[in-house]
Amino acid sequence: MKYTLSVLVENQAGVLSKISGLFSRRGFNIDSLAVGIAETPNLSRITIVVNGDEYLIEQLEKQLNKLISVVKVKVLDNNTISRELALIKVNANSKTRFEIIKIAEVTKSNIANISANTITIECSNTTDNIETLIMLLKPYGIKQIARTGTVALENGDSSAK
Amino acid sequence: MKYTLSVLVENQAGVLSKISGLFSRRGFNIDSLAVGIAETPNLSRITIVVNGDEYLIEQLEKQLNKLISVVKVKVLDNNTISRELALIKVNANSKTRFEIIKIAEVTKSNIANISANTITIECSNTTDNIETLIMLLKPYGIKQIARTGTVALENGDSSAK
Repeated sequence: MKYTLSVLVENQAGVLSKISGLFSRRGFNIDSLAVGIAETPNLSRITIVVNGDEYLIEQLEKQLNKLISVVKVKVLDNNTISRELALIKVNANSKTRFEIIKIAEVTKSNIANISANTITIECSNTTDNIETLIMLLKPYGIKQIARTGTVALENGDSSAK
Repeated sequence: MKYTLSVLVENQAGVLSKISGLFSRRGFNIDSLAVGIAETPNLSRITIVVNGDEYLIEQLEKQLNKLISVVKVKVLDNNTISRELALIKVNANSKTRFEIIKIAEVTKSNIANISANTITIECSNTTDNIETLIMLLKPYGIKQIARTGTVALENGDSSAK
């Protein structure tokens, strides 16, 4: 089963290395990892999507909490907004360009760049919807993809708990 | 100066730990790091924004290229599309709700969730524009932020070079 962990950490050199080391030493397969500045500039929030069972996730949570730079660990449940961002560069020519633009429109994506032979699409959505977009674009020839990994926040007022 | 490195790696356990370890050992201050599946499922693309000078970046590029799991390292120049994604949960009540929705509209952001006391905004944009949005939302009281870090692809046909 897939679990999403939201880890609030102090911005110290080596904290990402320590956390990713902890996962790899324990043989956890990280599906995605995203890290960015959190609500205060001295804190970062690392969102990690990982495969495992409940027991393993509990162990991981305990281990993460032992790290000095870790402020808070939260295993997110279904009451969560999850999004990721993908930049997808796809082959395009005068015959296929407008089909690709239409696909971008219906999937609520943006055209980030257009050239004689390519279109780069920017899509912020759920992982499932990004997978669908990639599947729709595949027949045109995908040149490059850069994805951010999932970020997630609990819905509504639940963080106040 | 800020540099953006795009590192294509094989999906092997521990590759992220090795790469982030290399940065921390050399005292590099990572501004952001994003990792996700690339154009083929056995490859991931790690985008790293880092502060440094030209000499240090060259050294880093060489060190990264020595790692077995690293397929390709590219230091991106200005001819690049850079985007990041932020989820921002902000306090909202019946007095402020419509102002916040208006701010989301003008910054081309989406409302990802709305509750009695909060609004969660989803914004995919350049780092500068996300900073502006956060600055505009700050007076309402920001509860939580989850940011992905920058992902970047070269414009148009330049990857064919």
